[in-house]
Amino acid sequence: MSVASTPVIDPVALTRDLIRRPSVTPADEGAMDVLERALTGLGFHCRRMRFENIENLYARRGTASPNLCFAGHTDVVPTGSTEAWSSGPFEAEVRDGVLYGRGAVDMKGGIAAWVAAVSHILAEGEVPGSLSFLITGDEEGPALHGTKRVVETLMAEGEVIDACVVGEPSSSRVLGDMIKVGRRGSLNTWITVQGKQGHVAYPDRAANPAPVMAKLLARLAAHVLDEGYPEFPPSNLEITTIDIGNPATNIIPAEARARLNIRFNPTHTGDELIAWLNAMAGEAQAASGLQISLEHLCSGNAFLTEPGPFVTAVQDAVEAATGRRPEASTTGGTSDARFIRVLCPVLELGLVGQTMHQIDERAPVAEIEALAEVYRAVIRTFFDRAYDSRSSASRAPPNIAAKATRK
Amino acid sequence: MSVASTPVIDPVALTRDLIRRPSVTPADEGAMDVLERALTGLGFHCRRMRFENIENLYARRGTASPNLCFAGHTDVVPTGSTEAWSSGPFEAEVRDGVLYGRGAVDMKGGIAAWVAAVSHILAEGEVPGSLSFLITGDEEGPALHGTKRVVETLMAEGEVIDACVVGEPSSSRVLGDMIKVGRRGSLNTWITVQGKQGHVAYPDRAANPAPVMAKLLARLAAHVLDEGYPEFPPSNLEITTIDIGNPATNIIPAEARARLNIRFNPTHTGDELIAWLNAMAGEAQAASGLQISLEHLCSGNAFLTEPGPFVTAVQDAVEAATGRRPEASTTGGTSDARFIRVLCPVLELGLVGQTMHQIDERAPVAEIEALAEVYRAVIRTFFDRAYDSRSSASRAPPNIAAKATRK
Repeated sequence: MSVASTPVIDPVALTRDLIRRPSVTPADEGAMDVLERALTGLGFHCRRMRFENIENLYARRGTASPNLCFAGHTDVVPTGSTEAWSSGPFEAEVRDGVLYGRGAVDMKGGIAAWVAAVSHILAEGEVPGSLSFLITGDEEGPALHGTKRVVETLMAEGEVIDACVVGEPSSSRVLGDMIKVGRRGSLNTWITVQGKQGHVAYPDRAANPAPVMAKLLARLAAHVLDEGYPEFPPSNLEITTIDIGNPATNIIPAEARARLNIRFNPTHTGDELIAWLNAMAGEAQAASGLQISLEHLCSGNAFLTEPGPFVTAVQDAVEAATGRRPEASTTGGTSDARFIRVLCPVLELGLVGQTMHQIDERAPVAEIEALAEVYRAVIRTFFDRAYDSRSSASRAPPNIAAKATRK
Repeated sequence: MSVASTPVIDPVALTRDLIRRPSVTPADEGAMDVLERALTGLGFHCRRMRFENIENLYARRGTASPNLCFAGHTDVVPTGSTEAWSSGPFEAEVRDGVLYGRGAVDMKGGIAAWVAAVSHILAEGEVPGSLSFLITGDEEGPALHGTKRVVETLMAEGEVIDACVVGEPSSSRVLGDMIKVGRRGSLNTWITVQGKQGHVAYPDRAANPAPVMAKLLARLAAHVLDEGYPEFPPSNLEITTIDIGNPATNIIPAEARARLNIRFNPTHTGDELIAWLNAMAGEAQAASGLQISLEHLCSGNAFLTEPGPFVTAVQDAVEAATGRRPEASTTGGTSDARFIRVLCPVLELGLVGQTMHQIDERAPVAEIEALAEVYRAVIRTFFDRAYDSRSSASRAPPNIAAKATRK
């Protein structure tokens, strides 16, 4: 494909096109088609992967190594009350230099910025390797039929991806102040204590589940999981709800339910935490004689992309483009990066996340354009260093080896 | 009034008349009129006391001392689903010797049985003293405008009542196996812990009220209030509900609410328990930094009618009528006896309580008739002993004095 044939893409126009498809998970509403058309126009080979009711896309341009992938999602969270928005959440209105709409920040703006960056790079010439996109329509939902299944398919086929940037809104206050190089794991546990209903005046005829639950939760909440370490904050357990729902002041309730969430760093695994919770519940059951049942859902183990050439290359590129060196952070919620980490080093770099998931989600037009510039620097730096690394491989320890020794 | 003029009243027929007035608290629906007509026919001076929307009745026959009072309530609890009843809850149907209807046991049957007993006593002659009725239409409800206010009024007027039988269904398995000579006090406390909502991934920006509540409740529930003593079971604290109602697995909730009930024996007072709960909440607030607010409602302090001539007379009478000596118990819920105890010795004696407040509340016809016989023996024994006690007052320690020394 000749350089002259690739169009230059405006990131803001593409963001608006994407926002106008109301792709609230699991709906697609044509969002993936918009993206596929843009990528096809840039010479990508687009491969749609539909799992259940979810649209996914893996697109690649080139067959050479290394393969730098951009990952993200076209689905968005619900709008909440549309009346509360200052303009329609899918109108993509620009006012005073700010683009309003669901997905402006999380993360249609990020997708469009990477596509625009690629179009500018290709307008200047071919890259010494491949570019790819791994885009799902199921990131904000259960995430069962999205990135996870695409990754499984690609691994089974032997597809090689060398590094991946996820376009989540990683920036904290200003564009480029933060990249995410890992995430804590997340475990939800539902606890039910089964007692026996009765009148408060006759406690011997009843068995109250409430104090058993209170004592168990107090023990769990008081337990220090770990102290954290430089790359990760301490693992943390939060009781997210306790519910009995007994309206009667003179009735001992039959059942107490609660739920907790643990965000854990790589010193723990979901399986180990589940075993610990089961043991604690077992002790409480033995002490009380009441049946205690637990259900667990681990939505991802913790991971960390260690310091190394890929992280450094991205940090250098961001600093060159914005003047500020991004902090490599592991704070915040989970993302699809947890599925990609088995393929290659992965990090998150994107817009300022402050209005994500909110009424009037919005991004300044200038910030989307600046992100395209940042991404352009990242792509350029990645391929420059990959080329340098290869040409010097025989005389000095390459960066890849340096990374391995630091693990 | 001549002996010949008083009619003999059938307790079952009067119970049925009363059940047919659907006097679900605070409604009266003519129930008090039914009773007033019966008592007027027996020569009682009836005085209606209406406080707010509540009908109350104080009726007295005679002016001489001692004054033996019967206390009770014409109001009933709601029926629940009327379709679930085997016959209409206000139809007072008799099937296979059993009277079905709301209030059959609690306690229109008890009222009718005492009225019938009085009618039989009066048919035999005058009593050496007075008989009275203290009946309210607000026992099953808030009890703010019922017995409490009638007692206040009578005390302000200097009315003397020497002893009182409350016709609550005190019997446990068979008629006369139990009388209630005291009740534990009851305190409800509502607890609110105010935290700060936030995302579970950013616990430093939030303050979770759930673990603070769990720890406080676990401490309260583990505290031994007392060990009880022969007349009373141990005081007991039950957590009756805990509610947060947070549907989101990734949100730290803003607020946690709970409620507890303490049933306490006379080693405690409501005020002392409130002070203890406030102190415990104060410690939890200081330790957590979260605002904890408590609301308390003490619906009655504990009381005990000590062993003495009145209790003995009633036990003797029940034993004579039924062949079994009733246990003097302090178990169970509160009753209006808690308001009457400031006037005179008070105890509860009535039908078997097993179907009270239930669908198909019911009492065997024979049991209502037997209760009328038991009440007749109680009235007779009371006045016989009061007469004996007076005539012997100058030569031996009277029973009243004996009672005082045992206190």
